[in-house]
Amino acid sequence: MRILGIDPGLRKTGFGVIDTHYAKLYYVGSGTIAIPTDLPLHRRLKYIMDHIREVIEHYKPSHSALEKVFVNTNPETTLLLGQARGAAMCALADYDLDVAEYTALQIKKAVVGRGHANKEQVQTMVQHLLSLNGRPEPDSADALACAITHAHTITLTHKLQDLDMDTTHTPRLRGGRLHI
Amino acid sequence: MRILGIDPGLRKTGFGVIDTHYAKLYYVGSGTIAIPTDLPLHRRLKYIMDHIREVIEHYKPSHSALEKVFVNTNPETTLLLGQARGAAMCALADYDLDVAEYTALQIKKAVVGRGHANKEQVQTMVQHLLSLNGRPEPDSADALACAITHAHTITLTHKLQDLDMDTTHTPRLRGGRLHI
Repeated sequence: MRILGIDPGLRKTGFGVIDTHYAKLYYVGSGTIAIPTDLPLHRRLKYIMDHIREVIEHYKPSHSALEKVFVNTNPETTLLLGQARGAAMCALADYDLDVAEYTALQIKKAVVGRGHANKEQVQTMVQHLLSLNGRPEPDSADALACAITHAHTITLTHKLQDLDMDTTHTPRLRGGRLHI
Repeated sequence: MRILGIDPGLRKTGFGVIDTHYAKLYYVGSGTIAIPTDLPLHRRLKYIMDHIREVIEHYKPSHSALEKVFVNTNPETTLLLGQARGAAMCALADYDLDVAEYTALQIKKAVVGRGHANKEQVQTMVQHLLSLNGRPEPDSADALACAITHAHTITLTHKLQDLDMDTTHTPRLRGGRLHI
């Protein structure tokens, strides 16, 4: 199973690709799409969509996961972020990928073990969980963390199904490990 | 010049196409894309994008205009609308169309003559300006009104250029007519 995680934004959109096999995680690739800020809005959205298309063509993921946009107190910012998210989702749906969504809180809980972890702690845990030589930069780390969260959720759901347990409740993830 | 106006929404997305020739307006087509509400978010966004693509393929517009989303007091609603808008803009940008944006206030001022017109007044003025036999339904009317606003803005800009006047200020439109 190959998972593409995306952290959408109108200035920078992070992406991260991992493979998962029997609850083991393997790093495949990651990066940041830097969107030219001098373009009009619709061109920036197309820039995001086109570059995510390229990432999909290159890595051929089977699943995708998105970080839910933080609903900002500034409605204009929320609207702009919503549009970036719409562009990212359109690219994924264009390739018939289903899109799982996780809040920053869910991702931090899944990867670091608690919801109030900072960016550096997420980067460090992503480096650790994927056995990377260096710390990934923040946008890629967030996207990889999102992919890891999805991998854990799917693996946990499968485990629960194997045990014939109720899979309708939200799975519990702590410290990047499954807790059944 | 053929203008496609769009009023994006996650439940219903209105579209309207008009031709403009020497400041005269001609109705070409309009409709409402009803998005199945039982689909997950990314499929609904793709539904919007795919159907706008079909509209573009069919009518081959040279310009496009979008109604700016009303920044709702509910941030979740703003985020959802932003995503619908992102999907619509991606479809337009995919066909290399430039996208003009107008607020509901600007559209109402341009079409009805004042910013606080209600939906019925917009529908009636759209019917009048495009010499339609019946009142277009609300979503199509909003999209057509948006296209009309863009037609007037472009025509006014050209008139000002012909008169060698300053075109940097916002054109004034009252009662669906140009005021130089």
